Amino acid sequence: MFGKVLIANRGEIALRVHRACQEMGIRTVAVHSTADATAMHVRLADESVCIGPPAARDSYLNVAAILSAATITGADAVHPGYGFLSENARFAEMVEAHGLKFIGPMPEHIRMMGDKIAAKDAMRRLDVPLVPGSAGALDTFEEARAVAEQVKYPVLIKAAAGGGGRGMKVARSASELEEAWRVARAEAKAAFGDDSVYLEKYLDRPRHIELQVLADTHGNVVHFGERDCSLQRRHQKLVEEAGSPVLSAADREALGARVTAGLSKLGYRNAGTLEFLWQDGQFAFIEMNTRLQVEHPVTEMVCGIDLVKEQIRIAAGEPLGYTQKDIAFSGHAIECRITAEDPETFAPSPGRVNTYHAPGGLGVRVDSALYSGYTVPPHYDSLVAKLVVHAPTRAEAIGRMRRALGEMVVAGIRTTLPLHQAVMEDAEFQAGDYTIHWLERFVAGRQG
Amino acid sequence: MFGKVLIANRGEIALRVHRACQEMGIRTVAVHSTADATAMHVRLADESVCIGPPAARDSYLNVAAILSAATITGADAVHPGYGFLSENARFAEMVEAHGLKFIGPMPEHIRMMGDKIAAKDAMRRLDVPLVPGSAGALDTFEEARAVAEQVKYPVLIKAAAGGGGRGMKVARSASELEEAWRVARAEAKAAFGDDSVYLEKYLDRPRHIELQVLADTHGNVVHFGERDCSLQRRHQKLVEEAGSPVLSAADREALGARVTAGLSKLGYRNAGTLEFLWQDGQFAFIEMNTRLQVEHPVTEMVCGIDLVKEQIRIAAGEPLGYTQKDIAFSGHAIECRITAEDPETFAPSPGRVNTYHAPGGLGVRVDSALYSGYTVPPHYDSLVAKLVVHAPTRAEAIGRMRRALGEMVVAGIRTTLPLHQAVMEDAEFQAGDYTIHWLERFVAGRQG
Repeated sequence: MFGKVLIANRGEIALRVHRACQEMGIRTVAVHSTADATAMHVRLADESVCIGPPAARDSYLNVAAILSAATITGADAVHPGYGFLSENARFAEMVEAHGLKFIGPMPEHIRMMGDKIAAKDAMRRLDVPLVPGSAGALDTFEEARAVAEQVKYPVLIKAAAGGGGRGMKVARSASELEEAWRVARAEAKAAFGDDSVYLEKYLDRPRHIELQVLADTHGNVVHFGERDCSLQRRHQKLVEEAGSPVLSAADREALGARVTAGLSKLGYRNAGTLEFLWQDGQFAFIEMNTRLQVEHPVTEMVCGIDLVKEQIRIAAGEPLGYTQKDIAFSGHAIECRITAEDPETFAPSPGRVNTYHAPGGLGVRVDSALYSGYTVPPHYDSLVAKLVVHAPTRAEAIGRMRRALGEMVVAGIRTTLPLHQAVMEDAEFQAGDYTIHWLERFVAGRQG
Repeated sequence: MFGKVLIANRGEIALRVHRACQEMGIRTVAVHSTADATAMHVRLADESVCIGPPAARDSYLNVAAILSAATITGADAVHPGYGFLSENARFAEMVEAHGLKFIGPMPEHIRMMGDKIAAKDAMRRLDVPLVPGSAGALDTFEEARAVAEQVKYPVLIKAAAGGGGRGMKVARSASELEEAWRVARAEAKAAFGDDSVYLEKYLDRPRHIELQVLADTHGNVVHFGERDCSLQRRHQKLVEEAGSPVLSAADREALGARVTAGLSKLGYRNAGTLEFLWQDGQFAFIEMNTRLQVEHPVTEMVCGIDLVKEQIRIAAGEPLGYTQKDIAFSGHAIECRITAEDPETFAPSPGRVNTYHAPGGLGVRVDSALYSGYTVPPHYDSLVAKLVVHAPTRAEAIGRMRRALGEMVVAGIRTTLPLHQAVMEDAEFQAGDYTIHWLERFVAGRQG
């Protein structure tokens, strides 16, 4: 096992990784910008190295400075957290070229999944479900109609050469298909000089459901079930749940079996998350994140697993000590991402936190680098705390989250705590009845 | 279900009960002394009533004031927490006489278990294991020798009329028995005017192991396994674990079956804990606590149950929604009782907490009524926080506790945090190799 790990990140995720290392008896090296000299991840680490000025490109994205810090401190391995350099294949390669272990997937898989088209091609080969549609460009309207009948309306006609919404038309029924076909082809011709189009099922009210996987270096691949991350605003997740209110154990097993078989074929390693759109019982792969996700705690709560410790063990060459059938799901977990933003306008609200008080009690977990007297710097992501609850049922978890949100104090700056409280009190949320569009409308309703 | 519950307690346990109520949608009434006007349990409750001056006899033990508070606020039920009036049968009766539900056992069982001799008699009838020995007073030395051979040395000869250690002699082998018999009888005669003696197995290095039970009003009785509370100083528990490092699943099942059968026969209701001494695979009943225990969280962590919610549901007449076979044990939990005391001299250290920072992350639970700026009053029990961790294995739980203790800040007063850190780092503790005498020696070693 490693003796010392450098954590190439900041904020709550740097603290998260530090905690796992400390519990495993591994010493930690924090890196920080000049803006983060008094940050919690620096205060708790065994050693720390300043790697540059506040701008991320000069510090947390400064590969040379981070590798120097690792070399100087004699670290054996680097954990990249999420964001920053976590999905940078070149960084992973350089870490390994310096004789250190990169705690994450292999560079070739980081690179593959970073290219969204290559990722989809790979998933198609690996039999991971994609959005249903035509196999490439369509030659005739009759072909289009046949595929549309098969995947069912609504459908989308899309320019093969397309992008930016041009040459893209929705047909909500058979009567609309001919018009959509004609307009999409005309637009495609005009925009791209190429009128070839293809057809896909149009998901008008999808949920975002993702699957957590782990793979060791001994050929074992397992999944830890799904997270429902449909509550998003501008593609930023705000609330995540495990499991999804709409998935059955059989759905989870079926998807899990296809995904783990695929990744096994690929030779994938360490942690990864496959993101899907889900509608009417169908999954459609969007992308794969080759790193730990912000919302990993909800999975940990329902599976009783420590994903960061597992990442470290895998990077050190240890085999998973269990197989898929040993992984059980217990109860329901919800995470609220508390950000330093105005809860109605989402204007950033950095500044001094005069008082920080974390909620406590049964089934409540707080991942946060806040402390009383800490100043949230304006330079980085606005996430300041993840409040996570676990309870035997979803209804009880919502009750627990309402209770915990009510106890939490972050005084001195504005936070999204009131928005989360409003979400928990909403009848549609409580019914689990939402899509990826729900939160935007909910926020607009509160503003209006 | 109740609409409003009065919580007849203070500190962390008042907060614990409040949290359960709030998650269940039940409004809460806090009661408080004048010393506790700004206490957390008062700040978070839906309503609060001042019931008297600081001295407990004038406030938290003031039955008339508490019943008035319940009547005035229209509460439906009273939760007594632990300590104070929680094992006062008369209080339970008066609560019910005022048309309110007492969230706890029936007065007759509180009364029975409050009388330690009656409790042992009851347990003998109910076939709950007691310390092995003679069935009452012995007539001859030959009888004493026969019983000693049967229960095995060391044994204790005790005055039947005895108390305070007089007329009590240990025989560590057969050769010591005659002398012990003679001296004990002579001392008994001199002290009590009665030389009748009995013989018991002498437990020279026992552990304190207790069993958590719940019984509903429909005849269902279940247990939630054991807690090992051997780490005590002057009969005050400091560290508790679930499960015990020395018990097997079969031991737990065997004890649980005998206890639940006994309590079923007794018609017991609500939560209760049977405390045992344990040595060489044998259990010996000490006493039964007819209330929630301070250390109940470790059981909640390994069983995934909310014992306070269960108490409330039972008091409201709901049946347990499960049977013994549905109760599973997962991982290991440890609780450290953090008190406002000097960690070496145990001198009380009330006063202002300038900064309170709770540890966070996976598997960490904090039950505390502390907050930054709170003044710990000198009038009450010194317990200020319960730090509880849960992990897949005992070794991992110890690692997590060490990590969490290191993150916790209670600045401005002295606390036992350093003592707990030292216990977690001790090799004997880590090996689970301790008796009820271990902590006293450990503390003496640190002082010397």
